[in-house]
Amino acid sequence: MSRTKAQFKRIGILTGGGDAPGLNAVIRAAVKVAVRDYGFTIIGFEDGFGGLIENRARRLSEKDVVGILPRGGTILGTTNRDNPFHYPVQENGQVVFKDVSAQVMKNIESHGIDALIIIGGDGSLTIAKELWERYNLPVIGVPKTIDNDIGATDQTFGFDTALNTATEALDKLHTTAESHHRVMVLEVMGRYAGWIALHAGVAGGADVILIPEIPFTIEKVTEKLMERRRTGKKFSVIVAAEGAKPAGGQVVVKKVVEGSFEPLRLGGIGNQVAEEIEQHTRIETRVTVLGHLQRGGSPTPFDRILATRFGAAAVNFLAEGRYGEMVCLRTPEIRTVPLAEAVEVMRRVSLGNELIRTAKQMGISFGT
Amino acid sequence: MSRTKAQFKRIGILTGGGDAPGLNAVIRAAVKVAVRDYGFTIIGFEDGFGGLIENRARRLSEKDVVGILPRGGTILGTTNRDNPFHYPVQENGQVVFKDVSAQVMKNIESHGIDALIIIGGDGSLTIAKELWERYNLPVIGVPKTIDNDIGATDQTFGFDTALNTATEALDKLHTTAESHHRVMVLEVMGRYAGWIALHAGVAGGADVILIPEIPFTIEKVTEKLMERRRTGKKFSVIVAAEGAKPAGGQVVVKKVVEGSFEPLRLGGIGNQVAEEIEQHTRIETRVTVLGHLQRGGSPTPFDRILATRFGAAAVNFLAEGRYGEMVCLRTPEIRTVPLAEAVEVMRRVSLGNELIRTAKQMGISFGT
Amino acid sequence: MSRTKAQFKRIGILTGGGDAPGLNAVIRAAVKVAVRDYGFTIIGFEDGFGGLIENRARRLSEKDVVGILPRGGTILGTTNRDNPFHYPVQENGQVVFKDVSAQVMKNIESHGIDALIIIGGDGSLTIAKELWERYNLPVIGVPKTIDNDIGATDQTFGFDTALNTATEALDKLHTTAESHHRVMVLEVMGRYAGWIALHAGVAGGADVILIPEIPFTIEKVTEKLMERRRTGKKFSVIVAAEGAKPAGGQVVVKKVVEGSFEPLRLGGIGNQVAEEIEQHTRIETRVTVLGHLQRGGSPTPFDRILATRFGAAAVNFLAEGRYGEMVCLRTPEIRTVPLAEAVEVMRRVSLGNELIRTAKQMGISFGT
Amino acid sequence: MSRTKAQFKRIGILTGGGDAPGLNAVIRAAVKVAVRDYGFTIIGFEDGFGGLIENRARRLSEKDVVGILPRGGTILGTTNRDNPFHYPVQENGQVVFKDVSAQVMKNIESHGIDALIIIGGDGSLTIAKELWERYNLPVIGVPKTIDNDIGATDQTFGFDTALNTATEALDKLHTTAESHHRVMVLEVMGRYAGWIALHAGVAGGADVILIPEIPFTIEKVTEKLMERRRTGKKFSVIVAAEGAKPAGGQVVVKKVVEGSFEPLRLGGIGNQVAEEIEQHTRIETRVTVLGHLQRGGSPTPFDRILATRFGAAAVNFLAEGRYGEMVCLRTPEIRTVPLAEAVEVMRRVSLGNELIRTAKQMGISFGT
Repeated sequence: MSRTKAQFKRIGILTGGGDAPGLNAVIRAAVKVAVRDYGFTIIGFEDGFGGLIENRARRLSEKDVVGILPRGGTILGTTNRDNPFHYPVQENGQVVFKDVSAQVMKNIESHGIDALIIIGGDGSLTIAKELWERYNLPVIGVPKTIDNDIGATDQTFGFDTALNTATEALDKLHTTAESHHRVMVLEVMGRYAGWIALHAGVAGGADVILIPEIPFTIEKVTEKLMERRRTGKKFSVIVAAEGAKPAGGQVVVKKVVEGSFEPLRLGGIGNQVAEEIEQHTRIETRVTVLGHLQRGGSPTPFDRILATRFGAAAVNFLAEGRYGEMVCLRTPEIRTVPLAEAVEVMRRVSLGNELIRTAKQMGISFGT
Repeated sequence: MSRTKAQFKRIGILTGGGDAPGLNAVIRAAVKVAVRDYGFTIIGFEDGFGGLIENRARRLSEKDVVGILPRGGTILGTTNRDNPFHYPVQENGQVVFKDVSAQVMKNIESHGIDALIIIGGDGSLTIAKELWERYNLPVIGVPKTIDNDIGATDQTFGFDTALNTATEALDKLHTTAESHHRVMVLEVMGRYAGWIALHAGVAGGADVILIPEIPFTIEKVTEKLMERRRTGKKFSVIVAAEGAKPAGGQVVVKKVVEGSFEPLRLGGIGNQVAEEIEQHTRIETRVTVLGHLQRGGSPTPFDRILATRFGAAAVNFLAEGRYGEMVCLRTPEIRTVPLAEAVEVMRRVSLGNELIRTAKQMGISFGT
Repeated sequence: MSRTKAQFKRIGILTGGGDAPGLNAVIRAAVKVAVRDYGFTIIGFEDGFGGLIENRARRLSEKDVVGILPRGGTILGTTNRDNPFHYPVQENGQVVFKDVSAQVMKNIESHGIDALIIIGGDGSLTIAKELWERYNLPVIGVPKTIDNDIGATDQTFGFDTALNTATEALDKLHTTAESHHRVMVLEVMGRYAGWIALHAGVAGGADVILIPEIPFTIEKVTEKLMERRRTGKKFSVIVAAEGAKPAGGQVVVKKVVEGSFEPLRLGGIGNQVAEEIEQHTRIETRVTVLGHLQRGGSPTPFDRILATRFGAAAVNFLAEGRYGEMVCLRTPEIRTVPLAEAVEVMRRVSLGNELIRTAKQMGISFGT
Repeated sequence: MSRTKAQFKRIGILTGGGDAPGLNAVIRAAVKVAVRDYGFTIIGFEDGFGGLIENRARRLSEKDVVGILPRGGTILGTTNRDNPFHYPVQENGQVVFKDVSAQVMKNIESHGIDALIIIGGDGSLTIAKELWERYNLPVIGVPKTIDNDIGATDQTFGFDTALNTATEALDKLHTTAESHHRVMVLEVMGRYAGWIALHAGVAGGADVILIPEIPFTIEKVTEKLMERRRTGKKFSVIVAAEGAKPAGGQVVVKKVVEGSFEPLRLGGIGNQVAEEIEQHTRIETRVTVLGHLQRGGSPTPFDRILATRFGAAAVNFLAEGRYGEMVCLRTPEIRTVPLAEAVEVMRRVSLGNELIRTAKQMGISFGT
């Protein structure tokens, strides 16, 4: 990457992957800094890489970002499909996957765009890396994931909001569980990393936390529930990450809708665990799958601030001539890390994590 | 029922059926009024009719109800099983259903209880009526249902809180739906009456509302979605009551766990509708089942006030010698209605309902 | 008023007076119904009567009202000044109040407007009445007041949201009061009517409620506080309507900023009561003045629905040829009442109000 | 401090100073870990140092801390008076300040207490240090301040919750400000450090932030407001820390109630700024003083987790034989710092702070 002061005029921006609270705050900050401090023009591509491929874009002025700071979602639209290096095209009545990145570069040039800000998760950042490496396109990445599992940054925006939603749900389920002497299972996001489940479980006073990093056995789970019964606690609350899995077992298969990365959920781990608990213990057990509620809502102050800092930093770094990198939080500073490194390591809960120890001291079982 | 001033000393109280936000407010109000204004003693039976049958009870003082006004759930516990007139008993290794109401009357007498406040829904109020009619036990009912479907009262507590939870969920789903150009389906409570779906749908700006009272066809639903696409609206939000059903069709069968009134939910109407929409339209569709979250949380001010009025009125009416009745809201007053009438008529959404007309004017489709 | 079907083409709309959560929902509903059901054109005047006087207006299409349902405030702007019948004009270096209503009528005609929807409180509705009576302008009023004190309607939108904000504040103050053994005073809105204070006080478990309708003495207030101390309750929470006043006394005078109806608040009743309590009891006392927080935020589902019904009904009634009237809630229906009657009677808390009785039974003192 | 494994049996705990959301979570965690993991007995002193001086204490079992995790306040009570080294005693009709620390040590011994956990701010931690240094009492401190101004820890619990309350207030004021074209001033906590104002201002999209660390001039503030007017932005939102002060000027004097550390607030900086803005600009300006609302409410997940970690760590460190120290967050770890250092440095906003730069890039003025 270059370290000389860049002479950009026009910057593109897009949001890729599943939406997360804070995306609008990033866009707002980037537009404000670009326009006010550097006199850049900002072009927003619509619907993630889809807009880049189909050349759907519009100019973003300061006026376009007024009032969007507290709003969830993304004014640019997004999608978790549409990879320019692997794009489905109809050919002779068949779907063939093609590399349409050359077209993407043409589209970018057609707007006179000098550099690109790509806000997204693992998938989007890998595409960002490719565009940078293959076409030398000045790209800067902004990490986004509800799950907080990108290794190169201490935290991502959206996580704190999702954690609030999950904890509030646990608070609500507690009163019902207690009144009915039931077991309540809350399934939260987290395919590969259990951060939401771990944090919400500690914050919401759960009795059992199940996460992908720690395979559980249903015997240990029910043991915990029965121990609570014996000591007069008539209800229990379980929080399970969607990617939690039994020891030696498989992640519960969900029905996958063709062409979609996110399966329509039918019978995930929450339901499986609940059924087994009822069979083993005869205690009434109920399941709540939080699903997309975790992506929605107004971002928390923490997420708004982190997203604002990311958006501002992305433009500042570009203006300094730093690209091929991703902005990241290295508490308390915003820095960058090369895109190549950014997508390499996933942040997962390590068993030595201090919060795991605290959780266990609180009497929380991990099903082991 | 008598209209002479009653000379009660000890009053029993219990909460039956699924929990609802506001139960604690009723208990608190009843205890405060009974103790402060009339010098009565209040005995709380635990876990609904279960405590009445098994004689588990405790005295409730003013101290016991301090701080419970804003809390969800019920400090007395509840259950939606345990009917004294139809109670499962083990006999020769088999489960036989028996009438144990005579034992219940003995339990009541054992505490020297003169009158009983029964807070519950349809099922609990029917039991209340039986106890009154068969044993002449001075009973007063307090209506409770999240679904707001008890005909004899203008509104029940818990409904407003559930409506808030459902509307907040719609607000959250809107940002995600909009960002991803998806259809989002929210399944809410309402087996037989669609009040939550109707109100939340209007309050949350839904595009389609599906309720038990208005059988829908999937064709009309998808027609609405495609019409929105054509006019540039790339997303849609649907709210479906769990009891919504296709015209000429059946309510979607859910797996029912033995001995439980509330089935473990797998593949309810929400999932069914979503699958059919995806098949018909190829638009990505996601489902959220709100489930027990609707029962949880701190009651709204409206629910706290209504519950407080109900609890106070129950004791006042008993003291006036009115029983065999149920307290009810006849806006703006609290009155009573005979228990026999109370359980007769279900409040369902009528097609001529003014809110239905307003919803249609807002462009909302009912799938017809 | 006429009862024949009106042949309107263009309808004006404006929001006057202090803002209230739900104004946007009224505007949205009116625009949707006018455009979709009747093919009317809607012209929105900006900043209340100011826009009418200065002829600042813009056309409102369906697109303009997308997404505003859950938002507080009003997209049209508002003001609590600017009366067309009493408008300050600079003349020879002096401010003279003039009747500029003829100019207003010209402005209305300049847009080809046939009828006008005026959303506002007492002041705005009086102007509506004048325009109807003097100029025969087809006007329909929509009542708006946080305070819920318009006699002709069972409820106004905005009140439920303000009540939620006030009750949430009481919940928060309770924990602090309890931890510190303090008296906490919360001053809420309510110049002439104590509905917010009464409802929030019951919902939030206050110990003392002070409202304009019931003059209090500080002796009775402190008596209550000391009685609580004696019975082991170390803290107390008081909610006071801004218009509460001591028996025989005056409303506390606030500094009034020239030309403003709503005074900058310095030392209102909350502070006065707190000071006297500290002097009389030596118990630490703290004051919180909620102020404009009560006007803000996303409207509750109840308020969104009521506002939507009002907005839709306003257009429906106009189309039916009913004007010179105000829409109102006569539970459960939306009806109209002549504007002349609408502004006549203020809804105030009557001493015989059932909620007053309930509050007293809860042990709440009204300082009497 | 010793580093050998301590042989404690009984540990005392108290909460001192103003309450903060998360205190109950600390108490809960400490009790759970002490009882479950180490078999210690925990004795809770009531009302901070007051209970230590007057020997009011009770044993805390696991049962006592059930359900308190999500609750604001402190079950132990607190006070911001009562310094054992400077305690007001009546002597010959006069108040004399005495050192009663010897009595405190006797009280501690009377319970057989081996070590003491003191949760509090600057003042309480200084007392903790004195008890450790003068009496060699094994003490461990837990930092608590809403203001987040204790230099020895990256963050304190309570701050995130206060930040949420302040940001939510800004969101609410925005709609009102926008509708009325007003300036809204929000006064938040922060005597000496402006963290809440700075973070809430960035998260809530304020236009002006006034903090103690950056003296402002009213001219620069009004300049910013007029600049916004000129560019068509008709409203502005200002957030001011209570300790903000004009350049060369004095902190606004508030009326101080005798014997209270926290003055009854009348005419703080918020009101002063508002008045001057109205005088200079003739724009309607309104003030909201958040006050104690910032201390109340259910702690956010972040605060619940940090408080839980602090509480658990306090007991773990004591068990390891570490005392005379304070637990602190050195992200991502919980460590300790000697009490002597803990109270030395205040964390204030430095002008080089990256968030200040970001705020300025967002167009926010600091009145300079």
